[in-house]
Amino acid sequence: MKKETLKQLVQRGVMVGDIAEIVKWLQEPYFPDLQLAECVEAVEAVLNKREVQHAVLTGIALDMLTEQKLVPQPLAGIIEEDQGLYGIDEVLAMGITNVYGTIGITSFGYLDKMKTGIIGRLHNGKEGRVNTFLDDLVAAIAAAAAAKIAHNS
Amino acid sequence: MKKETLKQLVQRGVMVGDIAEIVKWLQEPYFPDLQLAECVEAVEAVLNKREVQHAVLTGIALDMLTEQKLVPQPLAGIIEEDQGLYGIDEVLAMGITNVYGTIGITSFGYLDKMKTGIIGRLHNGKEGRVNTFLDDLVAAIAAAAAAKIAHNS
Amino acid sequence: MKKETLKQLVQRGVMVGDIAEIVKWLQEPYFPDLQLAECVEAVEAVLNKREVQHAVLTGIALDMLTEQKLVPQPLAGIIEEDQGLYGIDEVLAMGITNVYGTIGITSFGYLDKMKTGIIGRLHNGKEGRVNTFLDDLVAAIAAAAAAKIAHNS
Amino acid sequence: MKKETLKQLVQRGVMVGDIAEIVKWLQEPYFPDLQLAECVEAVEAVLNKREVQHAVLTGIALDMLTEQKLVPQPLAGIIEEDQGLYGIDEVLAMGITNVYGTIGITSFGYLDKMKTGIIGRLHNGKEGRVNTFLDDLVAAIAAAAAAKIAHNS
Ligand SMILES: [Ca+2]
Ligand SMILES: [Ca+2]
Ligand SMILES: [Ca+2]
Ligand SMILES: [Ca+2]
Repeated sequence: MKKETLKQLVQRGVMVGDIAEIVKWLQEPYFPDLQLAECVEAVEAVLNKREVQHAVLTGIALDMLTEQKLVPQPLAGIIEEDQGLYGIDEVLAMGITNVYGTIGITSFGYLDKMKTGIIGRLHNGKEGRVNTFLDDLVAAIAAAAAAKIAHNS
Repeated sequence: MKKETLKQLVQRGVMVGDIAEIVKWLQEPYFPDLQLAECVEAVEAVLNKREVQHAVLTGIALDMLTEQKLVPQPLAGIIEEDQGLYGIDEVLAMGITNVYGTIGITSFGYLDKMKTGIIGRLHNGKEGRVNTFLDDLVAAIAAAAAAKIAHNS
Repeated sequence: MKKETLKQLVQRGVMVGDIAEIVKWLQEPYFPDLQLAECVEAVEAVLNKREVQHAVLTGIALDMLTEQKLVPQPLAGIIEEDQGLYGIDEVLAMGITNVYGTIGITSFGYLDKMKTGIIGRLHNGKEGRVNTFLDDLVAAIAAAAAAKIAHNS
Repeated sequence: MKKETLKQLVQRGVMVGDIAEIVKWLQEPYFPDLQLAECVEAVEAVLNKREVQHAVLTGIALDMLTEQKLVPQPLAGIIEEDQGLYGIDEVLAMGITNVYGTIGITSFGYLDKMKTGIIGRLHNGKEGRVNTFLDDLVAAIAAAAAAKIAHNS
């Protein structure tokens, strides 16, 4: 299932390297010698977790089904607009954020607000594209990977 | 949106009264004089919350899209079987459980295990029916309503 | 720090074997061949996690400081009575429950209600003893260990 | 108990107005006409919740008991240093952050990282002062109040 998860992320425009760069940006102030390769490794470790795979597959499915106009109203409209009050994308992301402990929550909130790197590019996507869940999933994976690096160091 | 939420619950076979009965069963040991009408009121109050409506609409959409074979594999198979290791239904339900404080978590877990009333009927649904999300949503609404009653008493 | 965590659990009357027995009771219906030794191993794995150690040390400290009349009012009274509406013990326990994914939440809620084994003995402790946090911590450790067994099988 | 909660916040150097200013800073980009008085009102509404009062009283007790050298080792050392890996302060804060829905999580993480206003002053407190829990509690109250304003507007 990890292979399928990676494939779907790539199809939605997200490479492991994109997420690893966010991890590096997050953790560099604390670990100046941190290598991108270590960040890639941490992202891979996060993506090895079944709970994470389930969250990613579910969120991407909701984004895609909304794009394909298969989600019923009023939910479709709410997801399309990524309404500030729709918190289910954050709820799903929290399942990922916690896999290496609660310290991931802080980074998740920070990334969600700063829209760093690929997260911002997803958030301001092309017309017709729905990334309501994906931007939060990527922020959550990066936050969890950063927590893993903090725990190991 | 509340009207739409209630409509979709009814279409999936869940009446407010079914949920209120679970609330009464849960809280009767502590409040022997508890009336079903008060339980109905507490369930209605839970369903007034936008966060709850979002969770219910999202979960029911996932159940229905899975039934209609519109969810891509391998996710569809995982949801269909309500695999014990798929925790996204519980994650979604947690967003509801917490609206009246963390004391709802205990009742949620208990209901999820006991499959009381309508929860059990949903769980052992007809062939072709997918209620992977709905059973947890109902348990979560009942648990939140029970927490509301406990807080008010 | 794990050694210290185990020591404090023992001093408060909780042995790893007590928790393992709850895990066995929880998982036996699904895995009839489950050995107590595997349950002990799963409990040990949970207790190896720093996040778990922090939660256990913090909860036991709050119980002990309350017993020693060092916690200021009105908090001391609330903790002493283990008021149904005080949910901070559950909040702390949730940090543990999630270390092997959200499927631990269900078992946690179930154990919290059923008061199985040592959990019930802690809950109905001796006069002057405060186990407001400890009973939830033990339920959470058992729930997380059960989730680990489910994930591995 | 609200009176007691406010009193303890003031004794630890936190005024409602300090928290309201953070709320204003957070929400001003979205609501340019937002008045400080509305933010004060939202903070007061958060502090009316029993779950919030419990979290604040528990966190402040842990800070104060650590200052007074009454918390046993190794926990006291961990709390004193506000170790990056100790996540129990964030766990406690999450109980507050969620009272107006999961959208509070994003602001909480952001504040925890930016150390805005009083949060930064608490974090870099005087020698001998322990605010390990308090800075996260204040960030969580501000995040919940901001969520309340977003929901009402
Ligand atoms: Ca989003
Ligand atoms: Ca389910
Ligand atoms: Ca308790
Ligand atoms: Ca802190």
